[in-house]
Amino acid sequence: MDYETPQFFRVMQYAAAADRDVIDMVSGNPDWDAPAGITEGLHEYADLGGVDYQYPPSEGLTELREEIAARRNVDPESVVVTNGAGEANHLALAAALDREAGREVLLTDPVYPYYPGKTKLLGGTPRYVPVADDGRLDPAAVRERAGSDTAAIVVNTPNNPTGAVYPEDTMAELVGIAEDCGAVLVSDEVYDHFDYSGKFASALGVDSAHRVVTNSFSKSMAITGFRVGYGIFPPALRDAARTRHMLANVTGSRPAQYAVLKALRSTDREYYAANRDRLEERVATFTDALDDAGAEYSTPDGAFYVMARFSGFPGTMANAERLIDEAGVAGMPGETFGETRADWFRFALVTPDVVDAARRLADFFE
Amino acid sequence: MDYETPQFFRVMQYAAAADRDVIDMVSGNPDWDAPAGITEGLHEYADLGGVDYQYPPSEGLTELREEIAARRNVDPESVVVTNGAGEANHLALAAALDREAGREVLLTDPVYPYYPGKTKLLGGTPRYVPVADDGRLDPAAVRERAGSDTAAIVVNTPNNPTGAVYPEDTMAELVGIAEDCGAVLVSDEVYDHFDYSGKFASALGVDSAHRVVTNSFSKSMAITGFRVGYGIFPPALRDAARTRHMLANVTGSRPAQYAVLKALRSTDREYYAANRDRLEERVATFTDALDDAGAEYSTPDGAFYVMARFSGFPGTMANAERLIDEAGVAGMPGETFGETRADWFRFALVTPDVVDAARRLADFFE
Repeated sequence: MDYETPQFFRVMQYAAAADRDVIDMVSGNPDWDAPAGITEGLHEYADLGGVDYQYPPSEGLTELREEIAARRNVDPESVVVTNGAGEANHLALAAALDREAGREVLLTDPVYPYYPGKTKLLGGTPRYVPVADDGRLDPAAVRERAGSDTAAIVVNTPNNPTGAVYPEDTMAELVGIAEDCGAVLVSDEVYDHFDYSGKFASALGVDSAHRVVTNSFSKSMAITGFRVGYGIFPPALRDAARTRHMLANVTGSRPAQYAVLKALRSTDREYYAANRDRLEERVATFTDALDDAGAEYSTPDGAFYVMARFSGFPGTMANAERLIDEAGVAGMPGETFGETRADWFRFALVTPDVVDAARRLADFFE
Repeated sequence: MDYETPQFFRVMQYAAAADRDVIDMVSGNPDWDAPAGITEGLHEYADLGGVDYQYPPSEGLTELREEIAARRNVDPESVVVTNGAGEANHLALAAALDREAGREVLLTDPVYPYYPGKTKLLGGTPRYVPVADDGRLDPAAVRERAGSDTAAIVVNTPNNPTGAVYPEDTMAELVGIAEDCGAVLVSDEVYDHFDYSGKFASALGVDSAHRVVTNSFSKSMAITGFRVGYGIFPPALRDAARTRHMLANVTGSRPAQYAVLKALRSTDREYYAANRDRLEERVATFTDALDDAGAEYSTPDGAFYVMARFSGFPGTMANAERLIDEAGVAGMPGETFGETRADWFRFALVTPDVVDAARRLADFFE
C-alpha cells in the first residue's frame, strides 16, 4: 500500500505554508479547553511514579473500564480501552473481517476517509451507500446493498461530515440488517456530546451480538492528542479485539488513561453543555453569514462541521487551495469524502473566527 | 484467532491470587525510578493545554523524532514514533510481509512470545532457529534456514530471555542474510541500555535497505506504561509503516511523547549507568545464590533475565505454579519461550529481593 499523506494533513500543510493569514477550518482539533480534571489528573499521575508508571492491563486501567461501563450501562468485560477511536474502529473492522464471513464493508457516501482506508488495509472491500442530500441514511438503501458477503456496516452518528444524527429507529434497523446478514454494525459515536437535535441514539440502545460501539474522549474532552478511546464488543468479538490490541499495541498510554479517568469523575454536565452550546452558536453564526454569501449549506444536527456549496466552484483540492490563497479560509474539499459531495466543502467550526471566515468567503464569491 | 491470556499475565495473576507472599520475578516492569525528566515533563505538559493537547503529527512529535534521529545518527524521516516497541515490531513485520515477498518469519528458539503472535496475526508463518545453550545465535544456522520465502528475520539483542548480546559480526551477517534472500532483518533493541558485556552492536551499524531497528523508552526509562517506542525504517518500508500506523492508531499519545522528549534532553549518563550497575549486581547476587541452590543457570550479558534449571523439575506452567505456591517465587516457565528451554525457568530481576528469592528456591529444592 502506498502512503498517501491523508488529505486532511495535505490541506493543513498547504494552509500553514500559505503566504497570508488563513482561518483554519480543516482539522477536527477542538479550540476550546479540556476539562480541569485532565490537567489535574496529569499532575496527580506525574507524582505517582513507580509501579503506576508501568503497564496498565492490556484492556485499559480497570477503574477506567469500570467507569466507562457504568456510564454506558454495559459489562466492564465488553470494554477495551484503545488508542483513540481510531484503534477501536480498526479492532472492530478487523474482528468483523476475521470471522471469514464476508469481505465487503458497507460505508456511507460521503464517508469519513479513514473507514475505507482501514477496510482496504485489512483486506476488505468498501462499498458505498449514498445518503440523502440532508445526510439522512435510509436503512432500506443499506438493506438493499447488504448481503451474505457483508462483513460490516460502519456508521458515524452524529456524522462527520454531514452533521446528520441518525434517529433511534434508524439505529435499530441498522442493527437488524447486520443481524439478518450476519454482519457487524460498527457505530462510531465520537461526536455524541455534540447533538443539537436531542435525537441522538446510541447503537447501545439495541442489545445485539452484531454491533460494536466505538467512542473516544478526543472530542468530548478536547484532547485529540491523548489517544484514549474505547470499543464495546459483544462476547463473540471480544477475543479477536483483545488479541489484536495486545499484539499490535500491548496496551494504551497510562498517563492519558489516568487523566481521562480523573476527568470523567470530576467533570460536570455544564462543561459538556457549554461546549455544545458554543458550537451550536457557531453553526448559527456561520450559516447566517453563508446566507449572506449566497452559499448553499447544510445545518448540522450534530458534530461540528458545516458543508457548503458555491455555485460554479466544485469541492476539489485545487479549489480548496484557491480558497486558502485567495480567500484566506481553509476547508476540506468535499471530493475527499465521496462522490456525492464532490461539489461541496466541509468547514470545521473549530475557530472563534467563523464570522470573519464567512465574510471572507462572501467577499471571494461576490 | 482465539484470545489467549498471554502466559505472562496468567502467571502474574496466579501469583497475585496466591495465599502467601510471592516474590514477583515474572514481569518486565522495572522496579527502579524513571528519570526526573519524565515527571517534570508530564507536569510541564499538563500546564500547556490548548493546542498542545491536540494531535501530534502521526509519526510523532517533530522534536522527539529529531532528538531520536540525532542520537541514532539517522535521517529523522526514517523514524516513526510508535505506541511502544510492541507497535514498532508490528509495523516492521507487517511492512516485511506486505511486500508479498515471502510468508515465512525466522525467529529464534527460545523466542519472545509476542513475535510469533504478531507473525500469525499478520498471516505469516513462524519458523525457528535454535540458539546455542549459552544463547549465542549462529548466523550460519540462520542462513541455512533462510530462503526465498523468508519475509523477515526477527532478533532481539540484548536478548529476552537468554541474556545473550549478539556481537557486531553477527549483526552484520544477519543483515547480509536478509539482503541475500530479500528479507527484512528486524532488530529489537529495547534492552540496549542493559549491556554488561560492552559488546552490544545495534543493527544500525550496518546501513541497509533490509533492516529495521526497533526500540522503546519503556525499559531504559522505567516507563513501560507510557507506550513510547520507535522504529527506524529504510526508505522502501516507510510508506507501509506510516500508513499502517496512521490507519491503526492515527498517532501515539502526546503527554507521554512530551515527557520522553524532556527526559531524553535532561537525563545524564549516570542515570542509565546506575540502573545498569544495579542490574549487574543483582545478576551476581542472584546467580551466587543459585549456586548455593545447586541450580544450573545462565549468566546474562545483557537485559535483566536469568534462566535457571532445577534437576527433575521442568519449566512447565504446572511447575511455575508450584514454585509460586510452595516456594513463594514467581518465574516464567521456560516452555513459554520455546522447545529448547522447556526445562528452564526465566527469572526477571525486577525486585530487590533476589537473595531472598534464591534462598527460597534453595530451600524448596534442598
